[in-house]
Amino acid sequence: MREHRMLGVLGGMGPLASAEFMRRLTLLTPAERDQDHIPAVLWSDPRVPDRTAARIAGGEDPLPALLRGIRGLEAAGAGAIAIPCNTAHGWFEGMQAATRLPILHIVDAAADELARLGVPRGTIGVMGTAGTLAMRLYQVRLASRGYECLVPTEAEMAELVTPAIAEVKRNRIRDSYAPLAEAARHLTARGARAVVLGCTEIPLGIAAGPALPFPVCDTIDALARAAIGWARA
Amino acid sequence: MREHRMLGVLGGMGPLASAEFMRRLTLLTPAERDQDHIPAVLWSDPRVPDRTAARIAGGEDPLPALLRGIRGLEAAGAGAIAIPCNTAHGWFEGMQAATRLPILHIVDAAADELARLGVPRGTIGVMGTAGTLAMRLYQVRLASRGYECLVPTEAEMAELVTPAIAEVKRNRIRDSYAPLAEAARHLTARGARAVVLGCTEIPLGIAAGPALPFPVCDTIDALARAAIGWARA
Repeated sequence: MREHRMLGVLGGMGPLASAEFMRRLTLLTPAERDQDHIPAVLWSDPRVPDRTAARIAGGEDPLPALLRGIRGLEAAGAGAIAIPCNTAHGWFEGMQAATRLPILHIVDAAADELARLGVPRGTIGVMGTAGTLAMRLYQVRLASRGYECLVPTEAEMAELVTPAIAEVKRNRIRDSYAPLAEAARHLTARGARAVVLGCTEIPLGIAAGPALPFPVCDTIDALARAAIGWARA
Repeated sequence: MREHRMLGVLGGMGPLASAEFMRRLTLLTPAERDQDHIPAVLWSDPRVPDRTAARIAGGEDPLPALLRGIRGLEAAGAGAIAIPCNTAHGWFEGMQAATRLPILHIVDAAADELARLGVPRGTIGVMGTAGTLAMRLYQVRLASRGYECLVPTEAEMAELVTPAIAEVKRNRIRDSYAPLAEAARHLTARGARAVVLGCTEIPLGIAAGPALPFPVCDTIDALARAAIGWARA
């Protein structure tokens, strides 16, 4: 069994987002019984050093912990790796260089999801951690696909997005909806045709309140669809 | 890092119940940030042969696939194993004999949860797969803790419980609420003071509708609490 297409999930960043990724992976898979679902191993290690602190505040390098997880997924027999944490993709090249397994890139998955939502190019908004925005993970990779990315202002990050992400990580999901929805609305007011929830904690918060009245790219769903595509190919 | 208390989760039976277990494990853990959560590896293998079919219809033995998962969790560095599938506990002795890691027994976790719900003994109802009920997993193990177990009739199993579990496994969660709630009500009408949702698909269905007006023991939550207790000990 192990030789076949088993998905490896490098998770725990945060753990609720990983669990939600597993849930969406299951719900988005057409299935009539257990045996139709996709085999997967989730390495949920919440001890990985904070990615944003590493990038913008000189915190501990998360790469050794990320590589330990990749080694664990390789040993388990995974055939590809999905990482339901946007900020961790700041270490994508280091991870991909260290494994022969393909790593599905969450920004590519988000671009495919935007196209699926009817926004194949143009000006979009991207919400994410301060680390993801500072590393320009979306701005650079999406430019080649015809997107221009608007991001929250420093004040919006400090007052709305960063505290809301922290609320989700401490299990206070409901409290995160209002600030996240407000930050998303600011982006559309400045011209974004759609908003990418480019931190996997953000869709958890946004799901806790009324649906937003513009296209929203949920990067948990986007990565789950990319993983299903890989598993079914 | 790996030497420390990492939880192994033998899952995929079904995969949605495993994902929900990971979600509840996270939400029930007091945490202020990612690093406060419990490290875990989920081996989600939905290809494990059907447990009920093996026990009551001469289907393929699931033990080799269960042991493969346990080997994977051992290799990943797990310190204990939780199995969010009640029926798989019919192979508990075979699994426990094959590993030095402690396996947290879901029926013991359910008994602790019943006590927590204010039902420390007496007559209770147990819903589960036909395999779980035929193997008398709850009836025997709970008798020693002072419980008498009522179970659905054969007609209730055939018309309500078994089809509802299958609906969850094919992602039709909402459709499963009404038959599951009806089966639970029949048990309380016959004298049960509480009802154990003794198949991890059942709490998913029961969560899709109004709360039931009697104590309900959710075996996903029960096992998550037992796992948190182990990790924090």
